[in-house]
Amino acid sequence: MWSYYNPVEILFGKNKFQEIHNVLKNKSYIIITHPEEIFKKYSEELNSSSNPPLSIMTNIQPNPDYKHILQLQKKFSSISKTVDYILAIGGGSVTDTAKAIAAFKENQDYLTDFVRNKKNPQVENPIKIIAIPTTSGTSSELTCWATIWDKEKNNKLSLAHKELYVEKAIIDPTIMINKPLGLTISTGLDALSHSMESIWNINANPISALHAIQASKLILKNLPLLTKDLKNINLRSNIARACVHAGLAFSNTKTAIAHNLSYPITLNYGIQHGIACSFTLPIVTRSMIGINKIAEERLQLIFNDNLKNASIKLAEFMRSLKVPLNLNEIKVPVQEWNNIVNDAFLGERGKNFIGNKEAFIASSKLMGLY
Amino acid sequence: MWSYYNPVEILFGKNKFQEIHNVLKNKSYIIITHPEEIFKKYSEELNSSSNPPLSIMTNIQPNPDYKHILQLQKKFSSISKTVDYILAIGGGSVTDTAKAIAAFKENQDYLTDFVRNKKNPQVENPIKIIAIPTTSGTSSELTCWATIWDKEKNNKLSLAHKELYVEKAIIDPTIMINKPLGLTISTGLDALSHSMESIWNINANPISALHAIQASKLILKNLPLLTKDLKNINLRSNIARACVHAGLAFSNTKTAIAHNLSYPITLNYGIQHGIACSFTLPIVTRSMIGINKIAEERLQLIFNDNLKNASIKLAEFMRSLKVPLNLNEIKVPVQEWNNIVNDAFLGERGKNFIGNKEAFIASSKLMGLY
Repeated sequence: MWSYYNPVEILFGKNKFQEIHNVLKNKSYIIITHPEEIFKKYSEELNSSSNPPLSIMTNIQPNPDYKHILQLQKKFSSISKTVDYILAIGGGSVTDTAKAIAAFKENQDYLTDFVRNKKNPQVENPIKIIAIPTTSGTSSELTCWATIWDKEKNNKLSLAHKELYVEKAIIDPTIMINKPLGLTISTGLDALSHSMESIWNINANPISALHAIQASKLILKNLPLLTKDLKNINLRSNIARACVHAGLAFSNTKTAIAHNLSYPITLNYGIQHGIACSFTLPIVTRSMIGINKIAEERLQLIFNDNLKNASIKLAEFMRSLKVPLNLNEIKVPVQEWNNIVNDAFLGERGKNFIGNKEAFIASSKLMGLY
Repeated sequence: MWSYYNPVEILFGKNKFQEIHNVLKNKSYIIITHPEEIFKKYSEELNSSSNPPLSIMTNIQPNPDYKHILQLQKKFSSISKTVDYILAIGGGSVTDTAKAIAAFKENQDYLTDFVRNKKNPQVENPIKIIAIPTTSGTSSELTCWATIWDKEKNNKLSLAHKELYVEKAIIDPTIMINKPLGLTISTGLDALSHSMESIWNINANPISALHAIQASKLILKNLPLLTKDLKNINLRSNIARACVHAGLAFSNTKTAIAHNLSYPITLNYGIQHGIACSFTLPIVTRSMIGINKIAEERLQLIFNDNLKNASIKLAEFMRSLKVPLNLNEIKVPVQEWNNIVNDAFLGERGKNFIGNKEAFIASSKLMGLY
């Protein structure tokens, strides 16, 4: 028994950004975007069009923070007209921020109830969102959840609601063309992790798996080529397409053990998310041997090989992208790592994982993690 | 550049029908279903539940007719309460009828404007539909269109509207277990035709293609086994799953030349739809050699072979299911067939086809059609 749902309309293609003028015709909207110069041209194009936005919020920072969203809500409440759409132009943080505003609008109490009082999010007729991702990786444009941080209280919350899928995602690889090497690798690996994590997952189903296999194959083939040819629009396009498949996969399963292992590694050792959530993928792959026939078959289809060889191929792939593959390299003491592993298996995403800790630990040693 | 959209929530599994009680909790609804004895138990189960339907319309016949839908609208207008949901339990005709009622409700003028006056369908806040298909084939539960017939005027209309996707499709293979051999074959081949037609299609895209390949592979593998073991729930389940993939594929592309060829064959020669829309598939496959690299690769992935061999394998598969493969068998004169081919290439679905008439005719001769 399984279920599948993803209502996002995907518009994909080079220069597809221009479609936005048709989509927003006769509609009122605000823009949420990053402050950097590179993002300005998109807001400016719309601002000088015959249908300019009611407001532009440009000061979105990585990891949307509760206090900052409160400020944006204040700004939002000053808009006198009805807002039909929020246009989110940026990475995952921008789309996540847009979801928070779409859900809670000007009601700061609703946000506070959710973040500080741990109440279920009160989401009624959220504002429709159109997402134009500027990186390929987070797939926030294809999920119904958003990560909100409460930095003051050192807390991380997941705002999840079935009505928080964006209405349309415009995926335009030309927008991603100027992304630097490091970001290209880390976001690509984030998408690979989303895909593989959706396979060794209690929520995996035939549709999520089909997308996950396709996404993984595309990333394994295209990401190394793209790192050597960052301006190649066809390779960018292939990776953007892989991220669509990854999003369609893990939007229905959520992530699993590799993600739960990653959070303390990012928080306490400064390893960026895309690396932290993927450096254990070869280990998890190997730990799946003999665990579950269906998941094994799906993983084998990615690598066209058995899981022992698959884990070695994946480690070589990672190494070719200069991803650290052992604890010395990321400077995590073994004792600390053991604690992280214990905690990770107890967490919600750890429980999504269909494998087990013993096999993971055995596999860690075989793969030379420490 | 491409787009993809399918907002149907799919609930799949053995005995998943029982989920309906949760879905309809505290909701008002009517049931639309077939008159045959075999369908009664589902309506009766709901009718004797704590939340019975406001109305049950059981007299749905194949190929929903304008005049009959007018009668149903009259019955619908007599319901005094607001209807939250239409529950469609049956084959494609039932789901299509449900879509017509959902779209036009009690407004007979709207239906007449659409059917007789050829106006665009006036669809505003259609009633939500939950579909429980009892056959695997039409995939009406995954498309936003419905076929309505105007038998008096000898007309066939396609009611299509983005808001006519059903909200939920409950796919329960146990409901399909008692389907007879002929229906099992024809509906299975209909789904195969949906899949392959979505590949040689101007609207094909990476997501529709992924589903189409998966659907086709599942049908080619499982349908022959199922015909020899009709009560095998796992094989039924595999075919039901294939039909989900087929629906997710062709809901975004519509059909193509094989379907346009089929309509006069069904109308004038009494060949049932699933056979009529699939007996040309080997010919169309062969006609694709050298036409389009991407489509060729996708077709090759289904058969793991080149298109010449693929067309032969497909013809053998058809023959094993006792599908007629030449004009003598279906009693269509060659001259009449030539007219059908000419018309088919000029029609809307013919124009969806990325191949051409010359290659199709050459391939027809090579494959021994006449």
